[in-house]
Amino acid sequence: MTLVMDRPSTAPEPAVEEKKETGGLVIFAWSGELDKIWPTLILANTAAALGKPVTVFFTFWGLFPLVRNDRGITGDVWMQKMLSFMNRGGTKNLRLSKMNFMGMGPAMMKTLAKRYNVAGPQDLLDTAKEMGVKLIPCQMTMDLMGLTKEDLIDGLEEPAGAATALAAADGATTLFI
Amino acid sequence: MTLVMDRPSTAPEPAVEEKKETGGLVIFAWSGELDKIWPTLILANTAAALGKPVTVFFTFWGLFPLVRNDRGITGDVWMQKMLSFMNRGGTKNLRLSKMNFMGMGPAMMKTLAKRYNVAGPQDLLDTAKEMGVKLIPCQMTMDLMGLTKEDLIDGLEEPAGAATALAAADGATTLFI
Amino acid sequence: MTLVMDRPSTAPEPAVEEKKETGGLVIFAWSGELDKIWPTLILANTAAALGKPVTVFFTFWGLFPLVRNDRGITGDVWMQKMLSFMNRGGTKNLRLSKMNFMGMGPAMMKTLAKRYNVAGPQDLLDTAKEMGVKLIPCQMTMDLMGLTKEDLIDGLEEPAGAATALAAADGATTLFI
Repeated sequence: MTLVMDRPSTAPEPAVEEKKETGGLVIFAWSGELDKIWPTLILANTAAALGKPVTVFFTFWGLFPLVRNDRGITGDVWMQKMLSFMNRGGTKNLRLSKMNFMGMGPAMMKTLAKRYNVAGPQDLLDTAKEMGVKLIPCQMTMDLMGLTKEDLIDGLEEPAGAATALAAADGATTLFI
Repeated sequence: MTLVMDRPSTAPEPAVEEKKETGGLVIFAWSGELDKIWPTLILANTAAALGKPVTVFFTFWGLFPLVRNDRGITGDVWMQKMLSFMNRGGTKNLRLSKMNFMGMGPAMMKTLAKRYNVAGPQDLLDTAKEMGVKLIPCQMTMDLMGLTKEDLIDGLEEPAGAATALAAADGATTLFI
Repeated sequence: MTLVMDRPSTAPEPAVEEKKETGGLVIFAWSGELDKIWPTLILANTAAALGKPVTVFFTFWGLFPLVRNDRGITGDVWMQKMLSFMNRGGTKNLRLSKMNFMGMGPAMMKTLAKRYNVAGPQDLLDTAKEMGVKLIPCQMTMDLMGLTKEDLIDGLEEPAGAATALAAADGATTLFI
């Protein structure tokens, strides 16, 4: 019961059944790179546009794109600070998982995206929030990486754990990205 | 309802329901490396052999293995051409995601695969087509990377977008590879 | 309705059927790095704690963490031996998929994990076995990599193939990690 996330209990019986058939989308966003944030948020927003309930559970490296762009080094202990220095968070600092070429790859990708009208990560994130996509930061990752709620952007759900993500995943289309 | 892709409408009511219950397999093939194409196509072909409807949605780096082997540099603008040069498409040019060692890794893997009777990527792709696996190239990626239908192998479905892939994913086993 | 997990067990007869319908968790563990083993086993063990049937199918690089820590170089032919030398198996030898820094990254991560009470890979693996998570090594990968049952830890299921994994995946939450 307590694991169940936010299904409107106001909906009448038939609506629930209909919802069950179409199912929702739950993405475990683990990676955090530009080329992984793209499919994560494009799939999330497309599913939301199709009327599906969508949850994205940001965990491990996946949490870093949710760090505020104006945030500097994060973390309590030196290892967390060093990690944050090597893997700077925020949508402005995303790398490619391959062919990063010291940042030239992401710059090229962003230029191509603009040219071909593909929304950038910040726009996609804003749209996701507007469309009611639930963005859940992983509490354990926050502890491990030394990230606080103040380090993260606004409009996120309360930090939660694997059990919450798995409960949302039940009966939904699930992807680990 | 209209979102549901390609369910045989000839089947009688109970059969449809049964099929729906066991579900199909939908793979989001994002990666494009040799060691990712292997599980993608082995799982796709195995599921097809088990009688399941299978769809593979090739997106982002995942599109490059579908480029014709006799195709040279692809793309309209220099950034796309450069990308195609650095990340040569086609089943003959696949890398490993780790331990690539300038191509020595893939050569070793292919040798081991031959020795232990594991089909190579080209054979798996041919088999997938023969078995009726739907291979859908992502339209947005084609735009972004400057790939045209002429750049891609024969036997693919019409290019489509995330909505098509998500519709197919409904009720199916879904994997992001 | 049936999508909802973890209803109080006060529910009458249909509860059993409900549980079956909501399905379990099947993870295709392909990657084998420390930062991928973590989500694999944390999700597996969490789902098991929630009473779900859980299967992890270890394939390709994912098989290496299951190699015994006291095992040296594995494989029959020199290419397999070389692979095992470059990609040493066992939970003690796991790398990070990014920011590995010649082993400094994993050491830091393990230190942080200890500090914030996140269980290490060996503990998670032991817990998984205790909780009845089915750990299936991929037969084809074993052949390809030259790994024998004697090379792998105790407590695993019989080696199996893609068909077995896909059968378990039917109706379950599925993730490719």
